[in-house]
Amino acid sequence: MYYAKPLGRLVGELEKLPGIGPKSAQRLAFYLLRVPRDEANFTDQEQCEVCRNERRDRSLLCVVADPRDLIALEKTGEYAGVYHVLGGVISPTDHIFAENLRMRELVERVAAGGVRETILAVNPTVEGEATAHYITRILQPFDVKVTKIAFGLPVGGDLDYADQATLIQALEGRREMK
Amino acid sequence: MYYAKPLGRLVGELEKLPGIGPKSAQRLAFYLLRVPRDEANFTDQEQCEVCRNERRDRSLLCVVADPRDLIALEKTGEYAGVYHVLGGVISPTDHIFAENLRMRELVERVAAGGVRETILAVNPTVEGEATAHYITRILQPFDVKVTKIAFGLPVGGDLDYADQATLIQALEGRREMK
Repeated sequence: MYYAKPLGRLVGELEKLPGIGPKSAQRLAFYLLRVPRDEANFTDQEQCEVCRNERRDRSLLCVVADPRDLIALEKTGEYAGVYHVLGGVISPTDHIFAENLRMRELVERVAAGGVRETILAVNPTVEGEATAHYITRILQPFDVKVTKIAFGLPVGGDLDYADQATLIQALEGRREMK
Repeated sequence: MYYAKPLGRLVGELEKLPGIGPKSAQRLAFYLLRVPRDEANFTDQEQCEVCRNERRDRSLLCVVADPRDLIALEKTGEYAGVYHVLGGVISPTDHIFAENLRMRELVERVAAGGVRETILAVNPTVEGEATAHYITRILQPFDVKVTKIAFGLPVGGDLDYADQATLIQALEGRREMK
Protein backbone atom coordinates (compact mmCIF):
# COMPACT_ATOMS: atom_id res chain seq x y z
CA MET A 1 0.00 0.00 0.00
CA TYR A 2 2.94 2.35 0.60
CA TYR A 3 4.92 1.06 -2.36
CA ALA A 4 4.29 1.07 -6.05
CA LYS A 5 3.18 -2.45 -6.97
CA PRO A 6 6.40 -3.68 -8.65
CA LEU A 7 8.39 -2.41 -5.68
CA GLY A 8 6.00 -4.16 -3.28
CA ARG A 9 6.59 -7.40 -5.18
CA LEU A 10 10.34 -6.91 -4.94
CA VAL A 11 10.15 -6.31 -1.18
CA GLY A 12 7.94 -9.40 -0.83
CA GLU A 13 10.43 -11.53 -2.74
CA LEU A 14 13.40 -10.27 -0.74
CA GLU A 15 11.58 -11.01 2.53
CA LYS A 16 11.58 -14.67 1.59
CA LEU A 17 15.38 -14.75 1.80
CA PRO A 18 16.77 -16.33 4.98
CA GLY A 19 17.45 -13.83 7.77
CA ILE A 20 15.80 -10.94 5.92
CA GLY A 21 12.95 -9.23 7.77
CA PRO A 22 10.59 -6.57 6.37
CA LYS A 23 12.93 -3.67 7.23
CA SER A 24 15.97 -5.29 5.63
CA ALA A 25 13.94 -6.29 2.59
CA GLN A 26 12.92 -2.66 2.18
CA ARG A 27 16.52 -1.47 2.47
CA LEU A 28 17.69 -4.04 -0.06
CA ALA A 29 14.90 -3.19 -2.47
CA PHE A 30 15.74 0.50 -2.43
CA TYR A 31 19.41 -0.30 -2.79
CA LEU A 32 18.71 -2.46 -5.82
CA LEU A 33 16.56 0.27 -7.32
CA ARG A 34 19.28 2.78 -6.77
CA VAL A 35 21.99 0.86 -8.55
CA PRO A 36 21.02 1.18 -12.21
CA ARG A 37 19.73 4.74 -12.31
CA ASP A 38 22.00 6.28 -9.70
CA GLU A 39 19.05 7.83 -8.00
CA ALA A 40 16.33 6.82 -5.56
CA ASN A 41 13.26 5.58 -7.27
CA PHE A 42 10.07 5.20 -5.31
CA THR A 43 7.79 4.55 -8.22
CA ASP A 44 7.73 3.04 -11.68
CA GLN A 45 5.76 6.03 -12.92
CA GLU A 46 6.32 9.79 -13.14
CA GLN A 47 4.60 10.42 -9.80
CA CYS A 48 4.38 8.12 -6.78
CA GLU A 49 1.06 6.77 -5.55
CA VAL A 50 0.81 9.35 -2.76
CA CYS A 51 1.21 12.25 -5.17
CA ARG A 52 -1.24 10.72 -7.64
CA ASN A 53 -3.86 10.44 -4.87
CA GLU A 54 -6.46 13.16 -5.49
CA ARG A 55 -7.33 13.35 -1.79
CA ARG A 56 -3.88 14.50 -0.69
CA ASP A 57 -3.41 18.16 0.21
CA ARG A 58 -1.23 19.65 -2.56
CA SER A 59 -0.59 22.84 -0.61
CA LEU A 60 1.63 20.88 1.81
CA LEU A 61 4.88 19.60 0.31
CA CYS A 62 7.13 17.46 2.48
CA VAL A 63 10.74 17.18 1.29
CA VAL A 64 12.53 13.94 2.19
CA ALA A 65 15.95 12.59 1.30
CA ASP A 66 14.84 9.09 0.63
CA PRO A 67 11.74 7.02 -0.20
CA ARG A 68 12.26 5.20 3.10
CA ASP A 69 11.65 8.48 4.95
CA LEU A 70 8.45 8.92 2.98
CA ILE A 71 7.30 5.48 4.08
CA ALA A 72 8.19 6.21 7.72
CA LEU A 73 6.07 9.38 7.60
CA GLU A 74 3.21 7.63 5.79
CA LYS A 75 3.11 4.99 8.51
CA THR A 76 2.28 7.63 11.12
CA GLY A 77 -0.98 8.27 9.27
CA GLU A 78 -0.71 11.92 10.37
CA TYR A 79 0.47 13.58 7.18
CA ALA A 80 -2.08 14.56 4.55
CA GLY A 81 0.16 16.40 2.09
CA VAL A 82 2.37 15.28 -0.79
CA TYR A 83 6.12 14.58 -0.97
CA HIS A 84 9.24 15.51 -2.87
CA VAL A 85 12.04 12.93 -2.76
CA LEU A 86 15.48 14.51 -3.17
CA GLY A 87 17.33 11.25 -3.67
CA GLY A 88 19.84 11.98 -0.90
CA VAL A 89 21.30 14.85 1.11
CA ILE A 90 24.10 17.28 0.41
CA SER A 91 27.28 15.58 1.60
CA PRO A 92 30.50 16.95 0.13
CA THR A 93 32.58 14.19 1.75
CA ASP A 94 30.52 11.66 -0.22
CA HIS A 95 30.72 13.86 -3.35
CA ILE A 96 26.98 14.54 -3.22
CA PHE A 97 26.22 18.14 -4.09
CA ALA A 98 22.98 20.00 -4.74
CA GLU A 99 23.25 19.31 -8.48
CA ASN A 100 23.21 15.56 -7.81
CA LEU A 101 19.85 15.86 -6.06
CA ARG A 102 16.35 16.70 -7.32
CA MET A 103 16.66 20.36 -6.33
CA ARG A 104 15.74 21.85 -9.70
CA GLU A 105 12.57 19.74 -9.74
CA LEU A 106 11.75 21.00 -6.23
CA VAL A 107 12.08 24.63 -7.29
CA GLU A 108 9.95 23.93 -10.36
CA ARG A 109 7.21 22.39 -8.21
CA VAL A 110 7.16 25.33 -5.83
CA ALA A 111 7.44 27.87 -8.66
CA ALA A 112 4.41 26.29 -10.34
CA GLY A 113 2.37 27.63 -7.41
CA GLY A 114 -0.19 26.11 -5.05
CA VAL A 115 2.31 25.06 -2.37
CA ARG A 116 1.61 26.92 0.88
CA GLU A 117 4.18 25.19 3.06
CA THR A 118 7.30 23.14 2.37
CA ILE A 119 8.18 20.87 5.29
CA LEU A 120 11.82 19.80 5.41
CA ALA A 121 11.81 16.31 6.90
CA VAL A 122 15.58 15.88 7.05
CA ASN A 123 17.57 13.84 9.53
CA PRO A 124 19.12 15.65 12.52
CA THR A 125 22.63 15.32 11.10
CA VAL A 126 25.17 17.78 9.71
CA GLU A 127 24.17 16.76 6.16
CA GLY A 128 20.45 17.08 6.95
CA GLU A 129 20.96 20.56 8.38
CA ALA A 130 23.09 21.64 5.41
CA THR A 131 20.45 20.39 3.00
CA ALA A 132 17.69 22.19 4.94
CA HIS A 133 19.60 25.46 4.80
CA TYR A 134 20.30 25.09 1.10
CA ILE A 135 16.62 24.50 0.33
CA THR A 136 15.53 27.41 2.52
CA ARG A 137 17.80 29.65 0.45
CA ILE A 138 16.67 28.44 -2.96
CA LEU A 139 12.99 28.73 -1.98
CA GLN A 140 13.37 32.23 -0.57
CA PRO A 141 12.23 33.98 -3.80
CA PHE A 142 8.88 32.17 -3.61
CA ASP A 143 5.79 32.86 -1.54
CA VAL A 144 6.06 29.64 0.47
CA LYS A 145 6.54 29.00 4.17
CA VAL A 146 9.56 26.74 4.78
CA THR A 147 9.49 24.67 7.99
CA LYS A 148 11.69 21.93 9.42
CA ILE A 149 10.54 18.99 11.54
CA ALA A 150 11.40 19.27 15.24
CA PHE A 151 14.63 17.94 16.68
CA GLY A 152 14.62 17.21 20.41
CA LEU A 153 13.82 14.54 22.96
CA PRO A 154 12.26 11.42 21.42
CA VAL A 155 8.90 10.37 22.85
CA GLY A 156 9.27 8.22 25.95
CA GLY A 157 12.83 9.46 26.33
CA ASP A 158 14.44 10.79 29.46
CA LEU A 159 16.15 14.15 29.85
CA ASP A 160 18.58 12.57 32.25
CA TYR A 161 19.75 10.06 29.64
CA ALA A 162 19.64 12.28 26.54
CA ASP A 163 22.92 13.17 24.86
CA GLN A 164 24.09 16.75 25.14
CA ALA A 165 23.56 17.63 21.46
CA THR A 166 19.93 16.53 21.70
CA LEU A 167 19.40 18.49 24.92
CA ILE A 168 20.87 21.60 23.29
CA GLN A 169 18.49 21.19 20.31
CA ALA A 170 15.58 20.63 22.70
CA LEU A 171 16.40 23.83 24.60
CA GLU A 172 16.98 25.91 21.47
CA GLY A 173 13.85 24.52 19.81
CA ARG A 174 11.55 25.24 22.76
CA ARG A 175 8.07 26.39 21.87
CA GLU A 176 5.54 28.57 23.58
CA MET A 177 2.75 26.69 25.36
CA LYS A 178 -0.79 27.73 24.38
CA MET B 1 30.84 21.40 40.71
CA TYR B 2 27.23 20.58 39.88
CA TYR B 3 26.43 19.29 43.36
CA ALA B 4 26.34 20.94 46.73
CA LYS B 5 29.49 19.83 48.57
CA PRO B 6 27.93 17.32 50.98
CA LEU B 7 26.09 15.72 48.06
CA GLY B 8 29.31 15.58 46.01
CA ARG B 9 30.97 13.76 48.93
CA LEU B 10 28.08 11.30 49.09
CA VAL B 11 28.30 10.61 45.34
CA GLY B 12 32.07 10.17 45.67
CA GLU B 13 31.66 7.67 48.49
CA LEU B 14 29.00 5.70 46.62
CA GLU B 15 31.23 5.50 43.54
CA LYS B 16 33.74 3.52 45.61
CA LEU B 17 31.21 0.69 45.96
CA PRO B 18 31.84 -2.31 43.68
CA GLY B 19 29.98 -2.12 40.37
CA ILE B 20 28.78 1.44 40.96
CA GLY B 21 29.74 3.95 38.27
CA PRO B 22 29.25 7.73 38.41
CA LYS B 23 25.69 7.58 37.02
CA SER B 24 24.55 4.90 39.45
CA ALA B 25 26.24 6.70 42.33
CA GLN B 26 24.27 9.81 41.41
CA ARG B 27 21.00 7.88 41.27
CA LEU B 28 21.70 6.26 44.63
CA ALA B 29 22.64 9.55 46.23
CA PHE B 30 19.42 11.22 45.13
CA TYR B 31 17.47 8.21 46.26
CA LEU B 32 19.07 8.36 49.69
CA LEU B 33 18.37 12.05 49.93
CA ARG B 34 14.80 11.49 49.00
CA VAL B 35 14.10 8.91 51.67
CA PRO B 36 14.02 10.98 54.85
CA ARG B 37 12.28 14.11 53.59
CA ASP B 38 10.05 12.58 50.94
CA GLU B 39 11.18 15.15 48.44
CA ALA B 40 14.06 15.71 46.05
CA ASN B 41 16.84 17.61 47.65
CA PHE B 42 19.53 19.05 45.49
CA THR B 43 21.15 21.21 48.12
CA ASP B 44 21.77 21.43 51.83
CA GLN B 45 20.80 25.10 51.75
CA GLU B 46 17.69 27.09 50.86
CA GLN B 47 18.86 27.62 47.26
CA CYS B 48 21.08 25.40 45.13
CA GLU B 49 24.48 26.55 43.92
CA VAL B 50 23.19 27.45 40.47
CA CYS B 51 20.50 29.72 41.88
CA ARG B 52 22.93 31.30 44.36
CA ASN B 53 25.30 32.12 41.48
CA GLU B 54 25.05 35.87 40.86
CA ARG B 55 26.03 35.47 37.22
CA ARG B 56 22.99 33.38 36.27
CA ASP B 57 20.15 35.05 34.39
CA ARG B 58 17.23 35.26 36.84
CA SER B 59 14.76 36.22 34.10
CA LEU B 60 14.98 32.66 32.73
CA LEU B 61 13.49 29.97 34.97
CA CYS B 62 13.78 26.35 33.90
CA VAL B 63 11.35 23.95 35.59
CA VAL B 64 12.59 20.37 35.99
CA ALA B 65 11.08 17.34 37.71
CA ASP B 66 14.26 16.17 39.26
CA PRO B 67 17.74 17.37 40.27
CA ARG B 68 19.15 14.83 37.79
CA ASP B 69 17.46 16.73 34.95
CA LEU B 70 19.06 19.93 36.24
CA ILE B 71 22.46 18.27 36.12
CA ALA B 72 21.84 16.95 32.57
CA LEU B 73 20.99 20.49 31.43
CA GLU B 74 23.96 22.01 33.28
CA LYS B 75 26.29 19.60 31.54
CA THR B 76 25.33 21.03 28.14
CA GLY B 77 26.84 24.34 29.25
CA GLU B 78 24.19 26.08 27.14
CA TYR B 79 21.76 27.27 29.77
CA ALA B 80 22.42 30.52 31.58
CA GLY B 81 19.23 30.82 33.64
CA VAL B 82 18.14 29.42 37.00
CA TYR B 83 16.05 26.35 37.90
CA HIS B 84 13.00 25.28 39.82
CA VAL B 85 12.95 21.62 40.90
CA LEU B 86 9.42 20.25 41.25
CA GLY B 87 10.43 17.05 43.00
CA GLY B 88 8.57 14.86 40.48
CA VAL B 89 5.79 15.00 37.92
CA ILE B 90 2.03 14.70 38.20
CA SER B 91 1.24 10.99 38.03
CA PRO B 92 -2.15 9.98 39.43
CA THR B 93 -1.34 6.27 39.05
CA ASP B 94 1.60 6.79 41.42
CA HIS B 95 -0.54 8.99 43.70
CA ILE B 96 1.53 12.04 42.85
CA PHE B 97 -0.64 15.11 42.46
CA ALA B 98 0.15 18.79 42.04
CA GLU B 99 -0.07 19.34 45.81
CA ASN B 100 2.75 16.83 46.34
CA LEU B 101 5.08 18.87 44.15
CA ARG B 102 6.69 22.28 44.61
CA MET B 103 3.99 24.04 42.57
CA ARG B 104 3.08 26.67 45.16
CA GLU B 105 6.76 27.63 45.43
CA LEU B 106 6.90 27.94 41.62
CA VAL B 107 3.92 30.29 41.55
CA GLU B 108 5.46 32.32 44.37
CA ARG B 109 8.72 32.66 42.45
CA VAL B 110 6.99 33.81 39.29
CA ALA B 111 4.58 36.06 41.21
CA ALA B 112 7.54 37.77 42.87
CA GLY B 113 8.39 39.16 39.41
CA GLY B 114 11.54 39.34 37.32
CA VAL B 115 10.96 36.06 35.46
CA ARG B 116 10.54 36.73 31.73
CA GLU B 117 10.33 33.12 30.57
CA THR B 118 9.57 29.81 32.27
CA ILE B 119 11.00 26.85 30.34
CA LEU B 120 9.30 23.55 31.05
CA ALA B 121 12.01 20.90 30.72
CA VAL B 122 9.76 17.89 31.22
CA ASN B 123 10.21 14.42 29.78
CA PRO B 124 8.25 13.51 26.63
CA THR B 125 5.91 11.22 28.53
CA VAL B 126 2.22 11.38 29.44
CA GLU B 127 3.15 12.55 32.95
CA GLY B 128 5.56 15.16 31.61
CA GLU B 129 2.91 16.55 29.26
CA ALA B 130 0.27 16.60 32.01
CA THR B 131 2.66 18.47 34.30
CA ALA B 132 3.50 20.97 31.54
CA HIS B 133 -0.16 21.69 30.92
CA TYR B 134 -0.88 22.09 34.62
CA ILE B 135 1.96 24.60 35.02
CA THR B 136 0.91 26.52 31.91
CA ARG B 137 -2.53 26.94 33.49
CA ILE B 138 -1.36 28.03 36.92
CA LEU B 139 1.08 30.56 35.41
CA GLN B 140 -1.49 32.04 33.05
CA PRO B 141 -2.41 34.95 35.39
CA PHE B 142 1.20 36.16 35.34
CA ASP B 143 3.11 38.17 32.76
CA VAL B 144 5.51 35.35 31.89
CA LYS B 145 6.14 33.46 28.65
CA VAL B 146 5.79 29.71 29.19
CA THR B 147 7.74 27.48 26.80
CA LYS B 148 8.41 23.74 26.61
CA ILE B 149 11.58 22.07 25.35
CA ALA B 150 11.30 20.49 21.90
CA PHE B 151 10.25 16.90 21.38
CA GLY B 152 11.29 15.28 18.10
CA LEU B 153 14.10 13.42 16.41
CA PRO B 154 17.19 13.07 18.61
CA VAL B 155 20.44 14.39 17.13
CA GLY B 156 22.14 11.81 14.93
CA GLY B 157 18.87 9.90 14.69
CA ASP B 158 17.25 8.64 11.54
CA LEU B 159 13.72 9.39 10.38
CA ASP B 160 13.51 5.91 8.95
CA TYR B 161 14.18 4.33 12.35
CA ALA B 162 12.23 6.74 14.55
CA ASP B 163 9.12 5.46 16.31
CA GLN B 164 5.79 6.77 15.09
CA ALA B 165 5.01 8.82 18.21
CA THR B 166 8.31 10.68 17.83
CA LEU B 167 7.70 11.29 14.12
CA ILE B 168 4.25 12.69 14.90
CA GLN B 169 5.77 15.04 17.51
CA ALA B 170 8.48 16.04 15.03
CA LEU B 171 5.89 16.87 12.37
CA GLU B 172 3.57 18.73 14.76
CA GLY B 173 6.46 20.61 16.31
CA ARG B 174 7.93 21.79 13.00
CA ARG B 175 9.36 25.27 13.02
CA GLU B 176 9.78 27.93 10.39
CA MET B 177 13.29 28.21 8.93
CA LYS B 178 14.80 31.70 9.03
